[in-house]
Amino acid sequence: MKNYKIAVLAGDGIGPEVMVQALKVLAVVSDQFGFSIQHTEALIGGAAIDATGAALPEATLTLCKNSDAILFGSVGGPKWTSLPPAQQPERASLLPLRKTFDLFCNLRPGQIYPAFAELSPLHPKISSQGMDILCVRELTGGIYFGEKGRTEDAAFDTQKYSVSEIERISRVAFEAATKRRNKVTSIDKANVLATSVLWREVVERVAKDYPQVQLEHMYIDNAAMQLIRAPQHFDVLLCDNLFGDILSDEIAAIAGSLGLLPSASLNGSNFGLYEPAGGTAPDIAGKGIANPIAQILSAALMLRYSFGEEAAARAIEQAVASTLEQGIVTRDINSASNYGTADVGAAVIAAL
Amino acid sequence: MKNYKIAVLAGDGIGPEVMVQALKVLAVVSDQFGFSIQHTEALIGGAAIDATGAALPEATLTLCKNSDAILFGSVGGPKWTSLPPAQQPERASLLPLRKTFDLFCNLRPGQIYPAFAELSPLHPKISSQGMDILCVRELTGGIYFGEKGRTEDAAFDTQKYSVSEIERISRVAFEAATKRRNKVTSIDKANVLATSVLWREVVERVAKDYPQVQLEHMYIDNAAMQLIRAPQHFDVLLCDNLFGDILSDEIAAIAGSLGLLPSASLNGSNFGLYEPAGGTAPDIAGKGIANPIAQILSAALMLRYSFGEEAAARAIEQAVASTLEQGIVTRDINSASNYGTADVGAAVIAAL
Ligand SMILES: CC(C)[C@H](C(=O)O)[C@@H](O)C(=O)O
Ligand SMILES: CC(C)[C@H](C(=O)O)[C@@H](O)C(=O)O
Repeated sequence: MKNYKIAVLAGDGIGPEVMVQALKVLAVVSDQFGFSIQHTEALIGGAAIDATGAALPEATLTLCKNSDAILFGSVGGPKWTSLPPAQQPERASLLPLRKTFDLFCNLRPGQIYPAFAELSPLHPKISSQGMDILCVRELTGGIYFGEKGRTEDAAFDTQKYSVSEIERISRVAFEAATKRRNKVTSIDKANVLATSVLWREVVERVAKDYPQVQLEHMYIDNAAMQLIRAPQHFDVLLCDNLFGDILSDEIAAIAGSLGLLPSASLNGSNFGLYEPAGGTAPDIAGKGIANPIAQILSAALMLRYSFGEEAAARAIEQAVASTLEQGIVTRDINSASNYGTADVGAAVIAAL
Repeated sequence: MKNYKIAVLAGDGIGPEVMVQALKVLAVVSDQFGFSIQHTEALIGGAAIDATGAALPEATLTLCKNSDAILFGSVGGPKWTSLPPAQQPERASLLPLRKTFDLFCNLRPGQIYPAFAELSPLHPKISSQGMDILCVRELTGGIYFGEKGRTEDAAFDTQKYSVSEIERISRVAFEAATKRRNKVTSIDKANVLATSVLWREVVERVAKDYPQVQLEHMYIDNAAMQLIRAPQHFDVLLCDNLFGDILSDEIAAIAGSLGLLPSASLNGSNFGLYEPAGGTAPDIAGKGIANPIAQILSAALMLRYSFGEEAAARAIEQAVASTLEQGIVTRDINSASNYGTADVGAAVIAAL
């Protein structure tokens, strides 16, 4: 029987409580589909800072290195906002993890689910047109990791991209498009940035290998506008690190259902980090009312991308869909709901 | 009698036809308020490329240098999209103008007008909360103008900011806030960028001179999200060049009424360039149905910021408000409307 080792980094706020549900779901599907998951928990983020002084302790990093994938909760909260920005839990745990494991590819689906279209701030004018976008974001390059510096009266950051960095993320986007609606919108600022001119060239070269996929280029400012005017226009969005950071959050806002959106950060050879798109929601932490769906769907993505357990991943996704259809949702999705975190988790398991 | 010399760069698409209305309005208010405006037209953008090979011909630049302000239409269109990005009309005319005249400060108001709230894609859920944002964007620094380069297999851009660059734009934002709702939201990515850490420091230092103004810092990704979830949260938005480019277009999309939004680009000592936030709208160019309001309001900003003719500026703004209240609007604002560009211009003049 296949055995997968996962590092479970639940983190802060609602992280631990939604993680419990995801682990229960994993236990059931692994039974059903004949594999086993061995999970080990470790400290990350604010909780790790409090316990060890570091947002990403050595022990946690070692565990990750000895694992086949990382299931990540969420990190940060009011307790740590007074730390300098570079030491804040989210940044100080995620950036080194991405770099250490070469997680160059971030996938963030953003959907308006027809049944929950009214969650969208764009309801009903625009939400009725629907939205189903996959944001493919480069995650280990660009201005995040280029040379930076500081003198007393000035500072600088460098955005650098190489052909191979652009090429590998482009391929992911085009491959994904062939399994979706065959359209890639590549985001850049080629009228201003040298890196964007290179970006366009490389994307166009890669596009030649995918004649069935329609490619369009769009400036970042125009994309920020068009996502609001016509989100249904987009299928796969291909972005560099910074533009992807901005647009994936804009897309999440348009969807209006952060609690339903998972994400995957991949290294191109099975290893990955999986986390909900939303944050730690400190205001509702510990109350048992947080939405566990994004965490459960993140676990499904892990089964798909890290373990190749496609059938098990689909089973989770279908169980989630049926749970949503039954209206078993937390209050962020339906303010009149009385279901809590555990109820939703149990419903997903019942539907498996 | 005061005499102001303005360079009129109408440009492409609907630029010339909306400019005609703005000039008529200027002629009337200058009469009423006892000053004169001497305007000279020159080529810019695509029209200039066609006629001279350059988007910003020497003669046009000379005219601008000999003028007290630039009233700009809009540039670009399908005819020139096949040019390399760096040679496209908009970029090749605006960036050198900004740099030549040190137009470091871009002001873009973004409003949901209660009477036209249904234009907003966020109608009715979010639009009902209203929006009245002034985006203050640094316009001559950052990654736009830093060192850039290219080898065969890589490219780079540099974002650089000095204390003095950040300080002067921050002051504009705080000054503006004191005349509005006393709140500044400063946008950065201080958890990743060295320039953003400096940005925060300088903004905080400037804030000390404005104890009545509430300052908050917000990461760019969060801002892209919160603008959609709660646009009423924002008063003055203070942004660097790139983040301001993105968020000002996001705000325009949320307003849903590009045809009503003017902008001003200032150098801190009266000289400025004034242009509508929208584009050349090639699909409706020459049909006499383009909305002239953004161009007319841009002329009002010119009277205010370059000439100190506050009363005349207000008179235009009030005439526009009354025209809108009467429902004399073009089809972009009310699809059932039969009013054209000239009708709206005439109505503004009648209301003066
Ligand atoms: C915490 C921060 C550094 C991070 C990023 O900017 O990538 C976050 O916003 C994200 O998108 O995962
Ligand atoms: C044309 C382009 C270079 C310009 C910019 O990015 O500043 C435009 O988008 C704007 O906002 O005026």
